[in-house]
Amino acid sequence: MDQDQARRWLVTAVEEARAGLAEGGIPIGAALYGPDGGLLGRGHNRRVQDGDPSLHAETAAFRAAGRQRTYRGTTMVTTLSPCWYCSGLVRQFGISRVVVGEATTFHGGHDWLAEHGVEVLVLDDPECVALMRDFVEHHPALWNEDIGDASDISDAGG
Amino acid sequence: MDQDQARRWLVTAVEEARAGLAEGGIPIGAALYGPDGGLLGRGHNRRVQDGDPSLHAETAAFRAAGRQRTYRGTTMVTTLSPCWYCSGLVRQFGISRVVVGEATTFHGGHDWLAEHGVEVLVLDDPECVALMRDFVEHHPALWNEDIGDASDISDAGG
Repeated sequence: MDQDQARRWLVTAVEEARAGLAEGGIPIGAALYGPDGGLLGRGHNRRVQDGDPSLHAETAAFRAAGRQRTYRGTTMVTTLSPCWYCSGLVRQFGISRVVVGEATTFHGGHDWLAEHGVEVLVLDDPECVALMRDFVEHHPALWNEDIGDASDISDAGG
Repeated sequence: MDQDQARRWLVTAVEEARAGLAEGGIPIGAALYGPDGGLLGRGHNRRVQDGDPSLHAETAAFRAAGRQRTYRGTTMVTTLSPCWYCSGLVRQFGISRVVVGEATTFHGGHDWLAEHGVEVLVLDDPECVALMRDFVEHHPALWNEDIGDASDISDAGG
């Protein structure tokens, strides 16, 4: 994968993450690029804005791209390592490549994707790390909700 | 898991699948039930109806349930074995149980979920099998599109 192109594409995902943050949302952005390098769809996490837990950044970008007969040759670019939900999306639909802004603050399913033939590039982008680190520090409950982490909830049910 | 309760819950998912079929869509339905047995959300595949590839039956039911702080103790009931996208949803959000109407016409990620601690019950329901078998026979390209199977597309790009 062309690292310069991947970094240019990451700019789109970071713009989406910043747009989400400005709306009071979780700052994760993504973009889906076609085999010819054209943008198919872009989006950001919309849990807070729409009250919609199904729209992670990657699923929002996938949705924005509309119906596609095949995802062969496409690249999902995301500011953060994809969770199992979004990794499952990439695997099921045969998205060929994933560009990950960072996997430091959250380590999702990108290793699993690489094991199953997806080309994965982790960029270790400092801006992406800073965005998430700052957000998780200030909104830990919201972040845990977004990844289904209930470890901080007391289990009254025993 | 209580099999009688699971079969009662499956009725809701089948109703959703039939509603999708009546709308000209892909006949897969799902419902998310809470720990107390209350319905949290229900939905069906909306690829055709909304032109939205992100709304599989399970994600539609999950979306309809709205934001939840935890999915501990919840059950996802679906007419068809969940694809990787929907299996990833179940694993990421810690949904405790999955009731599968059938896994004959499509074998998704339910074994993987069981390996990762999700309680899985496959009901081998003849009505669910008939719904999908008939649909796939008459609309193979649409079904392949829904699961990202591009094997029937000639690859001009080599």
